[in-house]
Amino acid sequence: MMKKPEDAARWLLERDHFLILTHVRPDGDTTGCAIALCLGLRSLGKDAWIWKNPQFSGRFLPRMDGMLRTDLAADATLVAVDMATESLLPHGAEDFAGKSRLCIDHHPSNTFYAGETLLDASCAGCGELIYQVLEAMGVAITPAMAEAVYIAISTDTGCFRFSNTSAQTFETAAACVAHGAQIAPINRQLFEIKTKGRLQLEARMMTDMEFYCGGTVAICCLPQSLVEELGVSEDDLDSISGFPRTVEGVLVGAVLRDSEPGKVKFSVRTAPGYNASTYCAALGGGGHAAAAGAAIPGTLAEGKAALLAVLRQDKTLWK
Amino acid sequence: MMKKPEDAARWLLERDHFLILTHVRPDGDTTGCAIALCLGLRSLGKDAWIWKNPQFSGRFLPRMDGMLRTDLAADATLVAVDMATESLLPHGAEDFAGKSRLCIDHHPSNTFYAGETLLDASCAGCGELIYQVLEAMGVAITPAMAEAVYIAISTDTGCFRFSNTSAQTFETAAACVAHGAQIAPINRQLFEIKTKGRLQLEARMMTDMEFYCGGTVAICCLPQSLVEELGVSEDDLDSISGFPRTVEGVLVGAVLRDSEPGKVKFSVRTAPGYNASTYCAALGGGGHAAAAGAAIPGTLAEGKAALLAVLRQDKTLWK
Repeated sequence: MMKKPEDAARWLLERDHFLILTHVRPDGDTTGCAIALCLGLRSLGKDAWIWKNPQFSGRFLPRMDGMLRTDLAADATLVAVDMATESLLPHGAEDFAGKSRLCIDHHPSNTFYAGETLLDASCAGCGELIYQVLEAMGVAITPAMAEAVYIAISTDTGCFRFSNTSAQTFETAAACVAHGAQIAPINRQLFEIKTKGRLQLEARMMTDMEFYCGGTVAICCLPQSLVEELGVSEDDLDSISGFPRTVEGVLVGAVLRDSEPGKVKFSVRTAPGYNASTYCAALGGGGHAAAAGAAIPGTLAEGKAALLAVLRQDKTLWK
Repeated sequence: MMKKPEDAARWLLERDHFLILTHVRPDGDTTGCAIALCLGLRSLGKDAWIWKNPQFSGRFLPRMDGMLRTDLAADATLVAVDMATESLLPHGAEDFAGKSRLCIDHHPSNTFYAGETLLDASCAGCGELIYQVLEAMGVAITPAMAEAVYIAISTDTGCFRFSNTSAQTFETAAACVAHGAQIAPINRQLFEIKTKGRLQLEARMMTDMEFYCGGTVAICCLPQSLVEELGVSEDDLDSISGFPRTVEGVLVGAVLRDSEPGKVKFSVRTAPGYNASTYCAALGGGGHAAAAGAAIPGTLAEGKAALLAVLRQDKTLWK
């Protein structure tokens, strides 16, 4: 395992003909890392490409103009970014298994599948680490690179809202702006705009949301029929489980779905001091203290009754 | 006018018995500035208080425990923070007019009403400037001061989303975290949670929103009867004018209100390249390119027809 960004920088400087690999269901972090690294290597006169992940978001494609390749170049120096395990290889890239020469990542769960690994789990976004590698390579950071790094770190911190945001994250963002990143349009695209379908879905969820115990518990059913009626995609449903907890005063929020016939799936989100995992364990599920899930046979109405029965046992909630 | 934070720092160090003044309808910036400055002065052994603005948000009051005074102390050294003009004196503080000894502000519109003024319009939030003054005074920044500064700068940048966010803003945020600010709970309180009334209102607005020209124009009526039915406060309505523009693809968004009988008020928000001020001028109003307003006699339905007639004249929109 490499110890410092300088190690990866030296390794990259000694090589050429790079093909950069992003993970399946690519988010702004893996995508931004790939763009920044590709641009950085090219600025040094290297031959560098990004493997065309079939799931790249349309919103990022214009930033990758002229950088994408679809062939599985056998002779390329394969570099994976923000990819913790090979089970996250993108669709169509399964043949890359065992072939990554370098992995740059920030996930503590990294399985060290690559020949060399630069791992720094203290980075909120992998983009923080990529920025350090670029600097260590002596790259003159351009606005396009700075914007790619900014996309990476703002994505993984929810625009600096999440608890993983560190002083270093803000310092990296400061450097991006200093290097010419125009962040306001990026922020608007990533953190303000929602699709009409998502907003209509939220509107219906809010209208139908049920509150219990003086408003500390909020339960929301999301019938598959509604998802289909509004034509919302699974992308649009990203992080919808957190929606009930955006209502002031809600300590426990749950979203129930019947996307699989005959089965109801729970997503439970809780405030500090309330254990989502305990509630879900009582329904045969599990997870973390703040976010957990479960699935039981039945309808949405039956699921709601089952969940309420569990929540009623937590006397601290129903005081 | 003072030139540097060091000038204000010296001025403050030479004096004592401070009373800090915030502006009417106090936001997180003026409030955070007052808290940080009060704590900073006290840490140096000074006598310092915040004048109890009757409109202080309940969410910030616990942070001001033991710092608030309601009397108009004639002998105090009055310091106004984030207050551009004396027309922004808070309710009940009108007698302070002409008595501010120092003003620390970031508004280019500052009228220099105070004896001394430290003005830096390059700061996105006045909190950036307060932080520099604290540093220049040699204050050892505590987590409570750092959180107050963070509240100030994150408020005025919409959690670093707005175009006023600079490298210095991010650097100040980095310093806040380095000095122990716990930012995730603050971010959740300020930028994730909404009142039930606000969310119910958004739900109704979304359900009733009308789209024109392939979805590039969105118009939303906000009847006063709905505002009253849902019991939403004017606080809850903060920045509601921007709501239609959160829908993907909307270039021109308008919110129409009938809060005054017999009159319809327009708030228009536009994407770059579309001039809200031109549209509103045609209705007898005005404003900026991205945000403008107008008011005409009539009902919501009549107002909508009038606005659509204006928008129809912009051929670039109706192509």
